[in-house]
Amino acid sequence: MKGWRGMKESRTKQSIIDAAITLFNTKGYAGTSVRDIAGRAKVNAANISYYFTNKQGLLEYIVTQFLDGYIRVLEQVLAQHLTSPKETMLLTVRALLRYQSENRYLTRFFYREISLDSVLNRELVPLYLSRERQYFQVLLRTGMESGEFHKVSFSVFMVQLKAMLQAPYLHTQYISEVLYTIPSDPLFLGGYAKEVEKWLEHTLFRTAGLVPS
Amino acid sequence: MKGWRGMKESRTKQSIIDAAITLFNTKGYAGTSVRDIAGRAKVNAANISYYFTNKQGLLEYIVTQFLDGYIRVLEQVLAQHLTSPKETMLLTVRALLRYQSENRYLTRFFYREISLDSVLNRELVPLYLSRERQYFQVLLRTGMESGEFHKVSFSVFMVQLKAMLQAPYLHTQYISEVLYTIPSDPLFLGGYAKEVEKWLEHTLFRTAGLVPS
Repeated sequence: MKGWRGMKESRTKQSIIDAAITLFNTKGYAGTSVRDIAGRAKVNAANISYYFTNKQGLLEYIVTQFLDGYIRVLEQVLAQHLTSPKETMLLTVRALLRYQSENRYLTRFFYREISLDSVLNRELVPLYLSRERQYFQVLLRTGMESGEFHKVSFSVFMVQLKAMLQAPYLHTQYISEVLYTIPSDPLFLGGYAKEVEKWLEHTLFRTAGLVPS
Repeated sequence: MKGWRGMKESRTKQSIIDAAITLFNTKGYAGTSVRDIAGRAKVNAANISYYFTNKQGLLEYIVTQFLDGYIRVLEQVLAQHLTSPKETMLLTVRALLRYQSENRYLTRFFYREISLDSVLNRELVPLYLSRERQYFQVLLRTGMESGEFHKVSFSVFMVQLKAMLQAPYLHTQYISEVLYTIPSDPLFLGGYAKEVEKWLEHTLFRTAGLVPS
């Protein structure tokens, strides 16, 4: 049973994570020290060593947390045993956008971090993203074989899909400073999701008519 | 007249810039020191102070270089005095993708850098990107008024357009490590450009038929 001590522990842990994400998003990973994180989280630096060993351990924890949740979203859609590839694709995209909206600081940090050439991105991250690739490969193959999907280039489709999924979370500063739009505004995000569905409708789906939201 | 001295100078300057872009792309801006850059460029650190004052000056120089070139691409399309908004949009997108392919390390660095909350991104970068926004605002308004374009939400359209333009340059590690595709492969980039045009065709253009490449 998790008593008061456990609750306090997990609160400390979460405040370290939140502080780290904020600082990594503003100063970058390399520009942030363990001391900075401890200061912002209002905890002793020893807590960071205790939970995460060091800054690299904290980074890996955060990235893994994001990716575990991301893959779980895919598994939950699979568990619904949908028979239509089109419906599966739409529900997947909606579920991923929802997951990212619910974790938008984490999402932004993750997408920034993986645009860097780092050891993490050569080892840990590709392991997870290969599972995502397999998921979409099977889905695309099934849809193309059944005739529900157009024949498309998998690489090109994936790069565009990933770009579409990432954009509203990665380019928040552009959205606010240049387009004067609030990136977390549900109206903006709703309109955005609709356009992604329209894009799927035109690029991928051979049969007309959207699956109701 | 630029003599031998001038040529040597500009070679030194360019080697500093190239070294900085490579290091910023692998270790991040904050994780790179002036000494690292000097070492990689095989120049004395004093040269960096001479040309760019400090690391921040070098960063601003690189970002400005990218943005100057980017805006010049838009101006060159405008200078052609095209009368069709659709043709203008297609030629703009092609020219921007070409510019980015010709400067892909710089492009990647720039897009990574602007995803950070920094002073640069609150001051210098929005100045340039506001000009890009105005360009597309006028183009979209003209196209919607003439009936060549569908009525679309400007913010949503811009975020998607930017995402489409950036993706093959920003997510190079994903493309190579997960999709096993070479991000600079002309065949991949050509296929990608075609898909962006198809996306415009469906989202924006009301009249069928692509402008020939």
